[in-house]
Amino acid sequence: MTATAPRRRGRPSRTESAAGPATRDRILAAAREEFAQRGYEKTSVRSIAKAAGVDPALVHHYFGTKEQVFEAAVEVAFVPALSASGAIDEGPLDGVGERLTRFIFGIWENPATRAPLLAIVRSAVNNETAAAVFRRLVAAQLLGRIARRVQLPDAELRATLAAAQLVGTAMLRYVIKVEPLASADAEQVIARVAPVVQGHLTGD
Amino acid sequence: MTATAPRRRGRPSRTESAAGPATRDRILAAAREEFAQRGYEKTSVRSIAKAAGVDPALVHHYFGTKEQVFEAAVEVAFVPALSASGAIDEGPLDGVGERLTRFIFGIWENPATRAPLLAIVRSAVNNETAAAVFRRLVAAQLLGRIARRVQLPDAELRATLAAAQLVGTAMLRYVIKVEPLASADAEQVIARVAPVVQGHLTGD
Repeated sequence: MTATAPRRRGRPSRTESAAGPATRDRILAAAREEFAQRGYEKTSVRSIAKAAGVDPALVHHYFGTKEQVFEAAVEVAFVPALSASGAIDEGPLDGVGERLTRFIFGIWENPATRAPLLAIVRSAVNNETAAAVFRRLVAAQLLGRIARRVQLPDAELRATLAAAQLVGTAMLRYVIKVEPLASADAEQVIARVAPVVQGHLTGD
Repeated sequence: MTATAPRRRGRPSRTESAAGPATRDRILAAAREEFAQRGYEKTSVRSIAKAAGVDPALVHHYFGTKEQVFEAAVEVAFVPALSASGAIDEGPLDGVGERLTRFIFGIWENPATRAPLLAIVRSAVNNETAAAVFRRLVAAQLLGRIARRVQLPDAELRATLAAAQLVGTAMLRYVIKVEPLASADAEQVIARVAPVVQGHLTGD
């Protein structure tokens, strides 16, 4: 059982006795799928529980509210990739634009990570609660780290404008599928986008 | 009565006798509001008719299918601004980035035009049919004009990457409201974004 003590509501129930990390992961996978398919608003703790084949009480037990399940689903999709990439804000400062760009393209080009990211974007565009989760996790964690590395007076604004180039590129390439961007070779796009991201972060 | 002959279905009905350009406009305004509030998928010709206080047959008469109402609603929100701005693809080529950026910010900063644009973005992110309308109107019309003006071999890819910076900036500033971008002075943001847009279009 993972350390989810703050969310516990009383003693483990009978339903829960079969549970464990595998159940938690199954709930998260189901949540990601539900949020991706139905969007934040139409997804409920009940529908997640049903998709995972567990009692809704177990979803509450592990995660709390729907917002908290959403946050956990975003985190599980995003943070491991972030840690794995690790070195975005490490390494030479003049390569940070390319590292960040390759990190974002890496998530979007991989079908396994594209789906949850799409779910996040769709939900954040449609729902204020989901937008708040996006701000906390993506903006604060990723952009905050980069802004601290940049160390210019307007580093945070720079980081959000760099993110804007990446978010917009992802939107037009992977979500709205505007040509010729949607079918362009990834390396060709990275070659154009990375210097722009670098320019936002450290340019004049 | 405006020239909507291709959509006519038989003779004007009794319901229609009170109709005219004012009714058509009222339907469009209701459609924009419905698409903005409920999104493309949950909006129906019936719900638009109800919001406009007309018979659904009248919506069909003026516009045809839901997709066609959506396209008309997007067009009415977007194309007049585009014509008014007019000179985006005219004037000196080295000012096209700033003109395009100011045009996009102008739409988003004005609450009257922000709402319909938000409806388009939300719908295009969530629904393939709405995305297709976005591609036809926004991408083909606006980006096509600019790409023709740029006249470089990869002008179309350049135009979509310039659009990506603008779409992403709008998403993070007006939709997801990521700080400090959301609260930054518009002129300060334009000063950073316009040269990037210009660089995409005409830079190395």
